[in-house]
Amino acid sequence: MKLLEKLRINGMTIPNRVIVPAMVTRLSGEDGYVNDAVIDRYVRYAEGHVGLIVVEATAIHGNKSGPLLRLSDDSFIPGHRALVDRVHAASDSKIVPQIIHFLKVARSGWRQTIDSLSPAEIDGIVEMFADGAARAREAGYDGVELHSAHAYTLSSFLSRHNPRRDEYDGRTLEGRLRLFGKVMLKVRARVGGDFPVGVRFLAEESIKDGYGLPDAQRIALRMAQMGVDYISLSVGGKFEDAIHKPGQPLYPYTGYSGDRCMPGDWYPALPHANLAAEIKRYINGKGYTVPVASVGKISDPGDAENLLAEGKADLIGMARQLLSDPDWVRKVEEKRPEKIIRCIYCNVCKQLDENFKLVSCFLWPKGAIQAPREDLSGTAPDWSAGGAGLAATIESGTVRLSWRRAAGPGIAGYDVFRAEDGGAAIVVEAVKGAKYADRTVLGGLTYSYHVMAYDSSGRHSPPSNSAVVAMQMPDLSSPSPAEPSHA
Amino acid sequence: MKLLEKLRINGMTIPNRVIVPAMVTRLSGEDGYVNDAVIDRYVRYAEGHVGLIVVEATAIHGNKSGPLLRLSDDSFIPGHRALVDRVHAASDSKIVPQIIHFLKVARSGWRQTIDSLSPAEIDGIVEMFADGAARAREAGYDGVELHSAHAYTLSSFLSRHNPRRDEYDGRTLEGRLRLFGKVMLKVRARVGGDFPVGVRFLAEESIKDGYGLPDAQRIALRMAQMGVDYISLSVGGKFEDAIHKPGQPLYPYTGYSGDRCMPGDWYPALPHANLAAEIKRYINGKGYTVPVASVGKISDPGDAENLLAEGKADLIGMARQLLSDPDWVRKVEEKRPEKIIRCIYCNVCKQLDENFKLVSCFLWPKGAIQAPREDLSGTAPDWSAGGAGLAATIESGTVRLSWRRAAGPGIAGYDVFRAEDGGAAIVVEAVKGAKYADRTVLGGLTYSYHVMAYDSSGRHSPPSNSAVVAMQMPDLSSPSPAEPSHA
Repeated sequence: MKLLEKLRINGMTIPNRVIVPAMVTRLSGEDGYVNDAVIDRYVRYAEGHVGLIVVEATAIHGNKSGPLLRLSDDSFIPGHRALVDRVHAASDSKIVPQIIHFLKVARSGWRQTIDSLSPAEIDGIVEMFADGAARAREAGYDGVELHSAHAYTLSSFLSRHNPRRDEYDGRTLEGRLRLFGKVMLKVRARVGGDFPVGVRFLAEESIKDGYGLPDAQRIALRMAQMGVDYISLSVGGKFEDAIHKPGQPLYPYTGYSGDRCMPGDWYPALPHANLAAEIKRYINGKGYTVPVASVGKISDPGDAENLLAEGKADLIGMARQLLSDPDWVRKVEEKRPEKIIRCIYCNVCKQLDENFKLVSCFLWPKGAIQAPREDLSGTAPDWSAGGAGLAATIESGTVRLSWRRAAGPGIAGYDVFRAEDGGAAIVVEAVKGAKYADRTVLGGLTYSYHVMAYDSSGRHSPPSNSAVVAMQMPDLSSPSPAEPSHA
Repeated sequence: MKLLEKLRINGMTIPNRVIVPAMVTRLSGEDGYVNDAVIDRYVRYAEGHVGLIVVEATAIHGNKSGPLLRLSDDSFIPGHRALVDRVHAASDSKIVPQIIHFLKVARSGWRQTIDSLSPAEIDGIVEMFADGAARAREAGYDGVELHSAHAYTLSSFLSRHNPRRDEYDGRTLEGRLRLFGKVMLKVRARVGGDFPVGVRFLAEESIKDGYGLPDAQRIALRMAQMGVDYISLSVGGKFEDAIHKPGQPLYPYTGYSGDRCMPGDWYPALPHANLAAEIKRYINGKGYTVPVASVGKISDPGDAENLLAEGKADLIGMARQLLSDPDWVRKVEEKRPEKIIRCIYCNVCKQLDENFKLVSCFLWPKGAIQAPREDLSGTAPDWSAGGAGLAATIESGTVRLSWRRAAGPGIAGYDVFRAEDGGAAIVVEAVKGAKYADRTVLGGLTYSYHVMAYDSSGRHSPPSNSAVVAMQMPDLSSPSPAEPSHA
């Protein structure tokens, strides 16, 4: 399986092709130091055998902010060293921090933009990246990732919205690339040729007049020309279309570009895989083999393997899926993919982040701040003697499911599976209670449902009975559609 | 060539697979009657052998508006009959009007939304669609297309933003589909089973919380279930992200969703072809063979043929490309594809529309309101004895080209061709004067340029000499990059 093959990235050998991209956790204090909760979050990925763990965006500068890890001076190094040591002790997983520079935002909605930066301030940003990368090496990290995505400083220079007219001229591609080039050159000089330096940037800005694939291909090529060791893609997440909530600083995942950055359950699987494939094809065609990570609603091991096998990606990035189940890789290794707790892309994690709250997963037990450990001892949940008694009724384009609660302690919830018209059964929702309303059904199709109970360690009950519903075509003549109900 | 194969669509046989989707022209008066300029526009497509011509959105209701064709009462029929007769006399092209219902917009920025409609008003809209379709048949059209896309009434019901809570409940897919179902049922009853009824709808809303591919697949399936005769896709074009210009009614192509609807030159070719392919795959999998038209920056005959040959589309929709050259099909038939005047996606046509001006093409002769006819007599433009003398200089990430003006009367402009790093030469820009600045070049790559002069009938000169530029990597240490210049 290509997914489980090692990959050498400069000095670093990652044990498989899975990467967890940087995700906000809000577990750190405002002081910016690594704490036990932060360590627990990343050790959990290592225990799950994630190939490359990218630590949440870590500031290289002193700007005031909410909870945010920092590497802005040497006092932060010991905390990071403790994190790295704990991760390395847990497995062969490799770990790099994502280092970030961002400009000021105010609760009024005002934000600083890159045209306000003097040449000296820009030179200072270059130095901060080099210093931050050097501290990452000092802390024992396996490499470092430069945050050049979303609404932050490096990305704003790369943007088609870059308003500068000096050497960083937003009207030319070379002008837009210039700051990244200076940063990469200085970082490389400081950390040396043998320290992996990755980068994350946008395959598409997803804003009006923002850049698209052709620019992204050439930005990736410049990164390859400059010796970047891996390229991790993202999409959107910009200030330009962000929605200002009164009294809160502008947050770059609140507009449509935020939807594209973290596509919800109404998006198809792999909505952006083609962007990564086209970027990889372009740079490979120029003779560069720097690994490219594909991201965006990848959760099925078969889909991930296909992307690698078809040459559409070198690495598979999963953020929300690995938040919901950090043991994804281990379960694939152990040939137990059916035990993966599938992300349902409900985006509760995104909403927590948008509301400046500690980021957890809706699928975790209530109140948990870390993913539960899989517990193979003890008994899995089961249905009581009478079975689940899953039943379905139909009204006005809605299928209402109800069932009997499962027996046993620690039932955390129920996965609702649906097969449309004889297709594969997939999890469409995870619910805490014993009912669910499906409003996405179409008349003329047949739906087969079943549910499985799960406990907080992810053990699942056997499937319930199936409820099969043949949806009628709507009666378009009557004002209020009357449809027969089924069980 | 699959592209040139006939296709039978219900009673209508179109001579090839090319469709020109509805495009605003602003050629009609505010009275809504067909005039000579309108007829000339569509006859031009017929002369160019476009398989299916879709007439610009034609109102079935009496709302006040700017220049807009109407079929809102019988008085409009004779004008449409004249248009149809002229098109049919010109070639085997088939022609259908796109019939539209939209709600009120005001210059204040206010717009009416679908939650304001009473059940009786909605029933009235259903009747208006049936009446409009019947008038289309009466006028001799080969079929009719229901406008269910962009920011207009039917599309607003299909939207995930549909706020209704009655039988058209926006919370259920069936509720969102209900008005379209009623319209289709009534239209079919009125025009009969043998009259082609097509539909245009959105493969993706491209707005925050808007629907994506999974809903679009099921919407298409419902359309197929209800006997729609072809499905023409579009993307975006919504009010939700439109930018209000003071004193102008809100216009739904001014935001990011407008960018996606008419992707500019910074988008890749075929940015949305995969959406059409996935929608076609889904409905074909359910046993429906209703033809699906792919759209979005298709201009190359080879690309179009591949989409058909690979089963990713049944029809090829081109709006801006057929505006720039209505003879696209004829030139492909005559094996002269190199004579196609390639759309450069400069979106001057979109800007004219946004500013409520008559829509023409930047590539047409200055002041022309119709595409010029190809003139194979007379002499093509040529360079004077000394040649074009194309020369290139480089400064700050910009290649500046200049050349000597071509000889002969009626020179309309120059196509600038560029080959990146030994790739194919493609038209990157069309300019009126004898110079061009390319700001999209990347250091480390070699670019080969040439130009061709063209006159107002599309005759091209021989290629100029080539100017080859090897771009240096930028000097990242100096404050102002100094690059050698080449010729």
